[in-house]
Amino acid sequence: MRMVVMAERNLTPLDAKTAVGLIRYRPDAVVGAIDSTRCDGDVAAALGLDIGRGMPVFPDVPTALAVRPNTLAIGVAPANDQLYPHYRRQILLAVEAGLDILSGLHFRLSDDPEIAAAAARHRIRLHDVRIPPATRRVAGRVDRRRGNHTVLAIGSDGSVGKMTAMLELDRAARRAGLRSAFLATGQTGMMIAGGGLAADTIVSDFLAGAVQQHVVELATRADWTFVEGQGALNHPAYSAVTLGIMHGALPDALIMCHAAGSTALQGRPDCRLPALSRLVRANEEAVNLVHPRGDCAVVGVALRTLGLSDAEAAAAVREVAAETGLPTTDVVRFGAGELLDALLRHRDGVPDRRVG
Amino acid sequence: MRMVVMAERNLTPLDAKTAVGLIRYRPDAVVGAIDSTRCDGDVAAALGLDIGRGMPVFPDVPTALAVRPNTLAIGVAPANDQLYPHYRRQILLAVEAGLDILSGLHFRLSDDPEIAAAAARHRIRLHDVRIPPATRRVAGRVDRRRGNHTVLAIGSDGSVGKMTAMLELDRAARRAGLRSAFLATGQTGMMIAGGGLAADTIVSDFLAGAVQQHVVELATRADWTFVEGQGALNHPAYSAVTLGIMHGALPDALIMCHAAGSTALQGRPDCRLPALSRLVRANEEAVNLVHPRGDCAVVGVALRTLGLSDAEAAAAVREVAAETGLPTTDVVRFGAGELLDALLRHRDGVPDRRVG
Repeated sequence: MRMVVMAERNLTPLDAKTAVGLIRYRPDAVVGAIDSTRCDGDVAAALGLDIGRGMPVFPDVPTALAVRPNTLAIGVAPANDQLYPHYRRQILLAVEAGLDILSGLHFRLSDDPEIAAAAARHRIRLHDVRIPPATRRVAGRVDRRRGNHTVLAIGSDGSVGKMTAMLELDRAARRAGLRSAFLATGQTGMMIAGGGLAADTIVSDFLAGAVQQHVVELATRADWTFVEGQGALNHPAYSAVTLGIMHGALPDALIMCHAAGSTALQGRPDCRLPALSRLVRANEEAVNLVHPRGDCAVVGVALRTLGLSDAEAAAAVREVAAETGLPTTDVVRFGAGELLDALLRHRDGVPDRRVG
Repeated sequence: MRMVVMAERNLTPLDAKTAVGLIRYRPDAVVGAIDSTRCDGDVAAALGLDIGRGMPVFPDVPTALAVRPNTLAIGVAPANDQLYPHYRRQILLAVEAGLDILSGLHFRLSDDPEIAAAAARHRIRLHDVRIPPATRRVAGRVDRRRGNHTVLAIGSDGSVGKMTAMLELDRAARRAGLRSAFLATGQTGMMIAGGGLAADTIVSDFLAGAVQQHVVELATRADWTFVEGQGALNHPAYSAVTLGIMHGALPDALIMCHAAGSTALQGRPDCRLPALSRLVRANEEAVNLVHPRGDCAVVGVALRTLGLSDAEAAAAVREVAAETGLPTTDVVRFGAGELLDALLRHRDGVPDRRVG
């Protein structure tokens, strides 16, 4: 696949989560990005990150055709059912140029009459990944294979690195020779992994059931399963998604994800974050109300230190480790080794690893 | 409306929740019930409850036509997407007899080709209440009118009387001259109240937003809002629905609903119930992680004592009151007065009643 990632006016680490995820974890497949406001340098310069070096940024779809893409990936995912008006024209230009469209928007591009008609006319594929699974079932009693250890990322907010933490831990586990799998629960993770489920599209009654089905299936072939979490228990809009994943996954261990220095939900200054130690307890309790052993624990903290210097990041890590008493690191900056070690120690302390 | 309630093989208090809810709270509209295995006496005899005295039970739809119904209400709501096979034939007979169908099943009867075709042929209405609202939006910052006091029913399980507790409290509040409203969040409550939302049909990302919209709207015209909860935080299948309602409603106070003597989830003997006092704390914390004042509290316990003698019920009430330190009663058996009093005292102790 040769993707150009559409991030018009949004090619920043926080505004274009999907774009950044694809650039970081599918660098082989991404051949460029689009943002007319940030096309003076490469993607790395636009993002201010150490990814996408030498990857061009174009002002629009017609100029991006220079790198011979076969797919336009929509690099943003606004919360509601909307398509940014300035995206529509670029998508139509891509369709007319014969590019497939890869979208994680919260509605199907194939339900948009104008885009669907253009796609049919030009015989390109509209690949909407953020759609619910066909099966609708409530969670039941299903045992995971004994010996599988399932880890779930939780967080103090959305967009604090839950997917990244699980992808990095999955990589680190594989490098350590472990049979490891990653379960995506959101559109970006699905685009990166080529599978998973879009948890936030699932009817609430069937959410835990859908997650359970994936987790049980992965456990048949992986000893370690790293499940991407969504939202936060303390998020007034997304907590239902968070808890449905928690109870569908019934993890053995949790990794708490947090953005260094944040004190309120992003975009919601009225929603102050509870203290991290309180969030750790509340998340453990939320799992353990249902967990058959009742011993699920937060085993480490994945701290996002984006924008800090290395020295500031190290200080932030030390501070959170002291506050929570938990192994803490930034998995992007310092690697996931410390958290993997903590998880291995935790697993060895668990007498019966079966959950069900 | 003249409803016959279809509860074939299920006309018991726990198997036919929708039937029992309609018989208890819409006695004016229900003219009979159907259960071929319990048609020797009246509805009261079949249920073993003090409701439906003199209301006939018929073996099937053709015999039920004797009471000149204009609607067949489906009195059960199985968890998954299924129609009991023995219900299909009776529904088709009702359609052929010109009856409208009122359904709270987890899928639309109008999506069933055979039933939809029959309905079109006989020009009757298929009224599927368990469908998601058209609007899809995530919860945002929206203030409830100052002065409104919102109460949410939570529980240790599903089917432990959350709807009943809120309906009885709403009635008691109205009788006390308060401006009170009931918000249904499930199919039975919607059939009784003629409004509300089917929370468990809503895509998880938009659940809290949908509840918020209803709660904010009701607050413009009610001083007390009693919100039906769903499921339980400790239920492995339905907890996402539970938490989405909690955070959409952001209640001032909670009423904990519990079935006396129960020690495990119904139908899930492997899922032991946490101690009631632990559930009280966990539910309070789940709300308060998001609640702007952080002082939402469980104010009383609504204990379902179905099947116990009055003396046994009183003992069960005393036991739970002692265990939790909270005002406790069975609102059906002993009335909702004690819980309403507790809520009034709680409200008077809250300095600023606005939530937002």
